Amino acid sequence: MALPLTRIGLAGLAVMGQNLALNIADKGFPISVYNRTTSKVDEAVERAKNEGNLPLFGYHDPKSFVLSIQKPRVIIMLVKAGAPVDQTISTLSAYLEEGDCIVDGGNEWYENTERREKEMADRGLLYLGMGVSGGEEGARHGPSMMPGGSLEAYQNIEDILVKVSAQVPDSGPCVTYIGEGGAGNFVKMVHNGIEYGDMQLIAEAYDVLKSVGKLTNDELHEVFSEWNKGELLSFLVEITADIFGIKDDKGDGYLVDKVLDKTGMKGTGKWTVQQAADLSVAAPTIAASLDSRFISGLKDERIEAASVFKAGGFKNILKADSSVDKQSLIDDVRQALYASKICSYAQGMNLIRAKSMSKGWNLKLGELARIWKGGCIIRAVFLDRIKSAYDRNPDLNSLLVDPEFANELIERQAAWRRVVCLAINAGVSTPGMSTSLAYFDSYRRERLPANLIQAQRDYFGAHTYERVDMSGDFHTEWFKIAQKLNN
Amino acid sequence: MALPLTRIGLAGLAVMGQNLALNIADKGFPISVYNRTTSKVDEAVERAKNEGNLPLFGYHDPKSFVLSIQKPRVIIMLVKAGAPVDQTISTLSAYLEEGDCIVDGGNEWYENTERREKEMADRGLLYLGMGVSGGEEGARHGPSMMPGGSLEAYQNIEDILVKVSAQVPDSGPCVTYIGEGGAGNFVKMVHNGIEYGDMQLIAEAYDVLKSVGKLTNDELHEVFSEWNKGELLSFLVEITADIFGIKDDKGDGYLVDKVLDKTGMKGTGKWTVQQAADLSVAAPTIAASLDSRFISGLKDERIEAASVFKAGGFKNILKADSSVDKQSLIDDVRQALYASKICSYAQGMNLIRAKSMSKGWNLKLGELARIWKGGCIIRAVFLDRIKSAYDRNPDLNSLLVDPEFANELIERQAAWRRVVCLAINAGVSTPGMSTSLAYFDSYRRERLPANLIQAQRDYFGAHTYERVDMSGDFHTEWFKIAQKLNN
Repeated sequence: MALPLTRIGLAGLAVMGQNLALNIADKGFPISVYNRTTSKVDEAVERAKNEGNLPLFGYHDPKSFVLSIQKPRVIIMLVKAGAPVDQTISTLSAYLEEGDCIVDGGNEWYENTERREKEMADRGLLYLGMGVSGGEEGARHGPSMMPGGSLEAYQNIEDILVKVSAQVPDSGPCVTYIGEGGAGNFVKMVHNGIEYGDMQLIAEAYDVLKSVGKLTNDELHEVFSEWNKGELLSFLVEITADIFGIKDDKGDGYLVDKVLDKTGMKGTGKWTVQQAADLSVAAPTIAASLDSRFISGLKDERIEAASVFKAGGFKNILKADSSVDKQSLIDDVRQALYASKICSYAQGMNLIRAKSMSKGWNLKLGELARIWKGGCIIRAVFLDRIKSAYDRNPDLNSLLVDPEFANELIERQAAWRRVVCLAINAGVSTPGMSTSLAYFDSYRRERLPANLIQAQRDYFGAHTYERVDMSGDFHTEWFKIAQKLNN
Repeated sequence: MALPLTRIGLAGLAVMGQNLALNIADKGFPISVYNRTTSKVDEAVERAKNEGNLPLFGYHDPKSFVLSIQKPRVIIMLVKAGAPVDQTISTLSAYLEEGDCIVDGGNEWYENTERREKEMADRGLLYLGMGVSGGEEGARHGPSMMPGGSLEAYQNIEDILVKVSAQVPDSGPCVTYIGEGGAGNFVKMVHNGIEYGDMQLIAEAYDVLKSVGKLTNDELHEVFSEWNKGELLSFLVEITADIFGIKDDKGDGYLVDKVLDKTGMKGTGKWTVQQAADLSVAAPTIAASLDSRFISGLKDERIEAASVFKAGGFKNILKADSSVDKQSLIDDVRQALYASKICSYAQGMNLIRAKSMSKGWNLKLGELARIWKGGCIIRAVFLDRIKSAYDRNPDLNSLLVDPEFANELIERQAAWRRVVCLAINAGVSTPGMSTSLAYFDSYRRERLPANLIQAQRDYFGAHTYERVDMSGDFHTEWFKIAQKLNN
């Protein structure tokens, strides 16, 4: 006897896929699952049994998998971005019928999603590119989900997504229809860029507290636990506090000190930086975190460079044994971190806005802040403030000039400058914090020295310039005038 | 009676094209010229007559233009990058024969050149993508030229390029065969990225001297003229000195103060930043100059932001009327500019090296520094030092660790830190200088806080980490351990 048809399918059963499938089954939606390597299918079925006889049904071949799902069929894919997505689509779509839908849950380049949506539409099929954030834990217990593409497809599974996603009291489930085409992937990409920024800023706070303030791991654990009770309350600050508390199980001391200072990365941070350049949006904090990952990777070169400069007699302005008042340093660093974070989010949101305008996506920035409040890696109480800022003014030029954020920046800027200068004099780099500060100081400046650059461009390339006192494009024969003056 | 065949042809007679054609004719090489808008042809012919009856011959139709050139024919195009290049190729190649060559002298995206070189090769034609730097003046009197692509094609015109390019005493003509495929365009692109960096750093020096040091334009003219006699001797510092000396011909005061602080840009700076991200090379100084151009463009937003923060009671740590010793400030700023410049060039050279390795171009970094010594916008005595650094060690990891540059950085770092901190406390952003300093402080640091980031990544995404004390990839169940500890 055939089983009753399931509500939805999921293909690609690595950890994220398994967890999301279990989550969906756990919320009461019977789900069919499939994976090319069939042992993963059996693994998922076994887990479903062990985690409470969840309604999850495994299939070893794509045809019976697809046919086991009720129409219009919806299949979520969680496979590697790029070619594997195309392969999976090709395998599954052979059995799909008009009105059926495939949802890509991976970190896919948004243009690939747009290409696939068109190809699917030509065959009468629907397509969604859905960013999913929250890691393995989030996938199992409630991620933040950013679906974009076919609105009809979204509506077909809205009931599922709303239940499966993280639930935040007073602000609802962490999912919304993002927008057309690749909007969901794009927003997820920027989310990841912002995540890079948050992690870098936290690492710099750690570095200053440890290298200048001489805080121990125990003290760092205390400081981050304390910070996690206030304005910095967030998943990343919480896990940072956890990390400082964990002892090395392979030797003495704390595990964090044994971890090699080389950071890996995948594609989304890079894409964010490249898109920012494409859209003429400054995103220096996010770029600084990407660059810091690159430099972290050059461990051998750094060791060599350190020895070259040591041998050359390099000395910090701030001597290593200088004493700083720990409590005021901790307080200053907290403020510097918070102020830098505002700049980083301002960059990310403006990047999304610029793309939305160029693509006609009509994205709602406040709504994005809302669905990031739970489930995802950057979840934080801070996102509430961003949502409120866009509630106050949906057309805000920048978070920096929202009245509340502006006040917070004014209150914190002295501490911010103290921290960056202290670090500079101690030879401790804070690329994220210092570039955020430069961003702030550039953005709030009525007159920048860009007039000189434009004069130079007109001097050597006849690129013309505008004037402050009259409209039009002007060109000056700088060279000829200077020649006369110099003779 | 037919004219004797010319040695070379040039198509595209905007100012750059006209000037390069006149330069070639001036060096004694009879040249045919063509332009779609024929008035430009007549203009070039007229100029050739007026500038000393130079052997320049104009053609109003592409066929007679092409047939007027001796075989194997070489035609330099100076038209807008992108589609116009394809159109011009299509027009000209209809009349070309096997062994003939087209040279693109524009700022083309290197991949377009590689595509075209292949398409041309299929038809038995040769192709070069040749970056030309030096603006209008350089094109007329001696540019720096970066030809890449067909070596055979390069050899066909080497005698011309060697005479037409800028001549630098003791180091020869500013041209060399760069490498295969798009190597010439890529190197020119990074040259432009470095140019962005130089201009930004000079603008910041100006800003600090003017806004903090209260120097007048006359004093700035003196300072930059003085700087142009020493280690900063360069075209860009020279024209900067000139600019500060020029009065406004439409009103009172100096022209530089009337120029609007909005900087335009074309594609090369953006591409440089995007390529850096693609190649995992940190190029933060170049990125900061691009971002500064973006922010300069937001003039209206900046005016609004300035008023928001003024209204909110924003105050600088350093009061506007604080007095600083002018002479020591000038001296410090000079050192900060020079040190930052080293970082910027280190980034650019490493970007070229990374691309060269990934493409198998086998580029000679010292040789690039040599051909940038004259003709181009970034020409400077400084490039001699870069050439020497690569002569000492062609496999140098970074200019920063060349013994001479390392010493210069050690000597200047105290002044550099003073300038950045002074600017920070005065609320004057120096994104290029501060990001260069952070780059330096990151690169010469044996241990960065990247261990924390990698621990975070392993915590939420099971990305694994390496250890400082044993080899292998490790994963820790951070969450489970922390849960136990927290209970």
